[in-house]
This record gives sequence, structure tokens and C-alpha cells, in this order.
Amino acid sequence: MGETPSQLLAAIEDVGRDRTRGGYSRHLFGPAEHELREWFVEQARNRGLDVTTDRNANTWAWWGEPGPDAVVTGSHLDSVPGGGAFDGPLGVVSALEAVRRLRRSGRTPTRPLAVVAFAEEEGGRFGVPCLGSRLLTGGIDPDRARRLTDEDSISFAEAARRAGHDPERFGPDSSALSRIGRFIELHVEQGRGLVDFDSPVAVGSTVLEHGRWCFTVSGQGNHAGATELADRRDPMVPSAAVVSAARRIAAAAEGARLTVGKLVPEPGGANVIPSRVRLWLDARVPGEGNTRPLVAELAATARDAAAEEGCEVAVSEESYSDGVSFDTALRGELSEALGGVRELPTGAGHDAAILAKHVPAGMLYVRNPTGISHAPEEFAEPDDVEAGARALTRVLERNAG
Amino acid sequence: MGETPSQLLAAIEDVGRDRTRGGYSRHLFGPAEHELREWFVEQARNRGLDVTTDRNANTWAWWGEPGPDAVVTGSHLDSVPGGGAFDGPLGVVSALEAVRRLRRSGRTPTRPLAVVAFAEEEGGRFGVPCLGSRLLTGGIDPDRARRLTDEDSISFAEAARRAGHDPERFGPDSSALSRIGRFIELHVEQGRGLVDFDSPVAVGSTVLEHGRWCFTVSGQGNHAGATELADRRDPMVPSAAVVSAARRIAAAAEGARLTVGKLVPEPGGANVIPSRVRLWLDARVPGEGNTRPLVAELAATARDAAAEEGCEVAVSEESYSDGVSFDTALRGELSEALGGVRELPTGAGHDAAILAKHVPAGMLYVRNPTGISHAPEEFAEPDDVEAGARALTRVLERNAG
Repeated sequence: MGETPSQLLAAIEDVGRDRTRGGYSRHLFGPAEHELREWFVEQARNRGLDVTTDRNANTWAWWGEPGPDAVVTGSHLDSVPGGGAFDGPLGVVSALEAVRRLRRSGRTPTRPLAVVAFAEEEGGRFGVPCLGSRLLTGGIDPDRARRLTDEDSISFAEAARRAGHDPERFGPDSSALSRIGRFIELHVEQGRGLVDFDSPVAVGSTVLEHGRWCFTVSGQGNHAGATELADRRDPMVPSAAVVSAARRIAAAAEGARLTVGKLVPEPGGANVIPSRVRLWLDARVPGEGNTRPLVAELAATARDAAAEEGCEVAVSEESYSDGVSFDTALRGELSEALGGVRELPTGAGHDAAILAKHVPAGMLYVRNPTGISHAPEEFAEPDDVEAGARALTRVLERNAG
Repeated sequence: MGETPSQLLAAIEDVGRDRTRGGYSRHLFGPAEHELREWFVEQARNRGLDVTTDRNANTWAWWGEPGPDAVVTGSHLDSVPGGGAFDGPLGVVSALEAVRRLRRSGRTPTRPLAVVAFAEEEGGRFGVPCLGSRLLTGGIDPDRARRLTDEDSISFAEAARRAGHDPERFGPDSSALSRIGRFIELHVEQGRGLVDFDSPVAVGSTVLEHGRWCFTVSGQGNHAGATELADRRDPMVPSAAVVSAARRIAAAAEGARLTVGKLVPEPGGANVIPSRVRLWLDARVPGEGNTRPLVAELAATARDAAAEEGCEVAVSEESYSDGVSFDTALRGELSEALGGVRELPTGAGHDAAILAKHVPAGMLYVRNPTGISHAPEEFAEPDDVEAGARALTRVLERNAG
């Protein structure tokens, strides 16, 4: 059993490496994610925890009888394509390590304590982030979830079935939710908020309102050499206009972040005018209710650009999350337990933010020296990782001890 | 044995269907292309032809002893991703059918006659179009060809080896080339040049100068939600500028065609700022030597746009072909043999245009009622297909009879 969370991370450092993109691709129900789950179950059992998987494919490891008012910690094991080593696993290994330290100190929690690994937090396979926690809390219609498909057109229901889950049972899980007294997620920082401060750890304050939209631009596939410009209905041209407009619109709205990170021309041949381009917009805008209007503005621009090329565009909302302000009392407790560390807002979504609508939830961030995340360069110094585990241990001790 | 080329096309209509994109994906050395080659060999043998595969993976079917001054016809069996049923196979089945009709008429050619299926005409797997005919004629350095890779990073050499070819033998094949007295390729029209005319068949006149360039835009992968605009180096933004500029530059140059049909952001996650975007430019410009300057203009625009975003761009030429004017005497003969049909220029590249630099070469085009090509909607009416086969039969009879 590792002595530090960095050693636990080292134990899984070869699982799911992406040789093409660099970093890690650990997608829900894929071989790497499966291996990480198995490893998590083994580590949890080594620490005397009882492991169960809930109806939405989230895995729970319990110290004490599962019951109400539990203190729950954890994060996720899946990654974005080509992601870093810390986003998700750092919260899981820090929780495992905190349990080991609490055990070693001879303490027995007076309240149930659980470590959870939520499913498909990144939406890397089926497109909807925080899918496991959304299903659990009723944040997504289970029928819609079952129909989500991956890039090979395999549905979430089918993939779950193949992985041994029963997709008919997907959906709100009031018994699981009712057990959570409070949820505390430790996560690597995904910006530069802690770079210039003395503390390696901060407490989460707010999460930006955000969502994901798919723009489908349809034109007419044709020969790149034989088709004169006047005869073209090339969906790539309006798609480029959407990317440019997304940046322009974001720049005009203080703090807004619009991103097109995924764009797929079909059929995708170098000498072929595409028949269709699908692109995904990730939009996050400060304030309440400001995101959808910006997306609507972009959609209008897209329609104009598409019409100019004889193309059509359809926009569908794949996920949407209100902005979240974490539980004020819990924030205060966390900060105080850690000697008054500062609070940080974030533009990144988390399972803790999904749960925050239902139970007191809070977050601890561990310093990231470059601020880079969702990329192979994502990093946290071993000393900071250790500081995070110590902080989480202290917080759990106070909450469950 | 089919009685018409349409029946021959029907015999292969289920080979290599692309369930995702629609149409056909028949890529070099893939299962579908392999099946088509086997089918071609069988059909050729049924017609009493002797089949050989040359050192560059092109397959030849000979009527009579292979020798100099042969009349060669044929085309290719591979497709673009999601391509149509006619582009390539129409020339092959029309050639097979022409051989059958010449046999049936009791004629024995006075010169050797061959039907050839060239490898990787579309460049759909390894990126360089007309790869088989380029290698044969010395139009590409065999070392460079061997190192070309597909999307799974498998090299052309390795893929060829797995398919039973010897990549060490790739390269100029003077003995194969010296046998070709004249090359006549029948092909579906890829524009609307014949739509408004009475004739279902035309003779090729010229092929636009053209080439393919890869633009690699490098930035910094990062989190789409947590990274403020000011901290971004997002290669998607300058890539969109390249697409827009390509259209703008093409529109300003009479008859120019610049297309971006393939664009790959990496890692390609919806919530991830890409670290790199690769996009392919297909450029074809009328006149002599006009294509590269337009590409250079676009590359300069790309560098400016990349610099503005803190990104870098590298541009590499993957293939380049001079404009071609088919052999004037052969054009005249073809047109006269077919009762004075008209000539058509094209923006589409063909193996015949590669060969035209070395031997007299010509083309016959078969009417395409929509002009759409490189797409599932590509079509030729059965009557026009039949007219094409009749025309090719007549031309071969005159040339080899």
C-alpha cells in the first residue's frame, strides 16, 4: 500500500496512456477505465472499505454501514482524450490515502464515511459531463442518457450492459443521495489561481454556469477539384465562421469562455468538400443566465453564415449546468480547518457542483504550477499533492471524527 | 459474367459500404479494397486475361503477351472516405466489359491490350493521390512513399508488407512504363460539364494544376472552462482563419478552387482547448504555376493568424501535380472515333494525368446528372454507363484491333 498519494498515482501511471495524443485517454467502460475501477476496488478493500456500485455505475467504498449523514469524498477516474494524470485520480487517491491515515491514527468515524468514484465526469465518451452524478441526482432524463452514443454509435445503454450494468435501472437514486450528509471533492486546480500564493491548497467558492452545444452544419458533399466555388455548399466555410465568431463574442463579454475543441468534417477526405460538419461549443459565462443568450447569439451568426453558403445549421444543447456557489457554511468550515486558506472560483465543472444543488458540497483545490489542465502538461508538485492529502485528512477527521 | 457494366457494378455494390458516412470507403489494402482486387482478378481471368501485380501494387490484366506499344485502359478501385460507386470502378468495369465484347466479336488485338487497376488513386489512406502511378513513373521518391502513414500511424511500407507486397521494390518501373503505348482511362464526370449536352460521353482535354498541403497549427492544450481568453493559445482560432482565408483567396482568383475537407483538432475533446490542429488544403488553380503562390499567400495569412494567438504554423506540401493537357493527337482520335464528341477540362486529378507526362494518354468522361462526386450521390444513368462502355469498346477496337 502506497505511503503517499503520489505513490498511488505512480501505481496507475501506465494505465490508459494515449500514444497518439499524449497523456491519458481513460474513457467510461473502456479497458483503461475498467482497470482503474478494479484497482480502486482493490485499494478500497485493502483499507477495509466495503465496495458497492450504484445503479448509475458510480462506485462507492464505505467505511462503516452506509447510512444517512455520511461524509463522502472522492472524484472520478475517467479522463478527457489525451488528458492529464491528476484531473480526477488525484481526488480519488487523496481520499484513499486519507482513509489509510485515519485508520492508522486509530480513529473510527462517528458517521459513515465513503469514497466515491463518479462515472463519466468528463463526458469524454458520451458527451455529457458529470453523467454519473447527474443521473443520481435526477439532473438528466435517464431515457435521454440511455440514448447517448459514443463515436462508434454505441449507446450508453449498450456500453453499460456490456460492462455488466443494467441500464434499465439508470436514473434518480434517492437512497444513494439521501445518505450524503456532505460531499467534499479534492481536485487539481485547473487554472493559475494558486500559482502566486503561499498556500498549496484552496477552498472552492463558485463554479461558472456552463454547457455544451452541438452545431451540425449540413451542405453538399462534392469533389474538391471539380466543383466550382459557385456550385459549392461547403459546410466547412460557415463552421470556420462559427469558430471565429465564438472567440469574438466571448471577447466582448467579460470573463466569458467559448471554446470549440472538437470539430468533425464528414466524410473528412482531403480532396472532398464535406457534406456535414459537426462542432461542439463549450460555453461558460459569469453571472446568472448569461450563457444561453451568448450561445443564441452565436447560433444566429451560424445561421447567417450557413445561409450565405447554401447550408443549414442545427444547434442542440447537450448539457447545461447553472452556476454554483458552494455551501457557505461548509466553505467556512473547510477554510478554517485548513488555517484560513483562500477561496477560489473556477470555470471547470465538477461532480461536487452537481451535488451542491442537493446536499452541502465543497471542494479543495491543489496548486497546479502551470495552470494547464485537460492536457498532458497538467501537473502538481509532490509536496503540494502531499499537502492536499493532509488537508483532506484533516477535513475528514473533523467532519466524521 | 455480367452483360453490362451496370451489372458488374451491381456485383460489387455491397463491398466497402461505409455505414457511418454513407457511400463507400474502400481504402488501399483494407478489406474492401482487397475484396475488389480479388474480384477484379477473377473477372479478368474469366475473360482469359493474365493477371500480374507490379512492384508498386498496381494490378494488370493482359490480353496477349505483355509487351511494348500496348494499349492500356483501366482506372482504380479505391475510394475517398464515403465516396460514390462510380469514381474508379466505372473505368475498371467498362474496361472488363469492353474486353468481353471484343472477345465476343471474335477479334484478337494486333497489339497487347491491358486493363490496369492503379493503387491509392485517391490518396484516401496515405494522403498522396495517384500513389501507384506516381511511383511507377518516378513521380514520387520511393523513400518518401514508404514513410507515408495512415491515420493509425501505419506506414505505407508496413501496410504493403502486410498485404503481401515488397516495399523495398517500390519505385520507378521502366519496364512497366515502357510497355504502355497509350493509356485511355474512362471515368465518371465529376462536374456538370455534360449535363446540358446531348452526348453521354466526352473526351478529356486538360487537368488543372493541383496539390495537397498540410497546415499544422500548434498551441497549448488546456481546459476549456478554466482557461481565460488572455491565457489561451488555441490553434482552432487561427485554423478557422485559414479556412475563411482559403475561400476568400480562391474567390479572388478566377477559377481557383481551395478546399479544406479534412481538419483534425487534437486531442479533440469538447471541453478541451486543442494543443494542435492539422488541416489539409486541396488547391487547384488554372494556368501554369499559379497554385503554389496562392498557397504561399494562404500560408502567410496562417502565420499572421497563428502569431496573433501565440500559436505556430508549419506548412508541408504533400503532393503537387503540374497541369496536364492530354495528348492532342490522341484526343483528336478519341473524339473522331466517337463521332465528334466534345472535349471537357477538369479540376479532378487522375492516373491518366500522371501517365500523360510519359506516354500518350487520354480520358473519356461519362455524364453525371448532378455533377456530384466524392459523395454518395455520385451517379451515372445506366444508359450513359452503357454508352461509355460502347465508346471504350470502339476506341480499344480502333487502337488495338
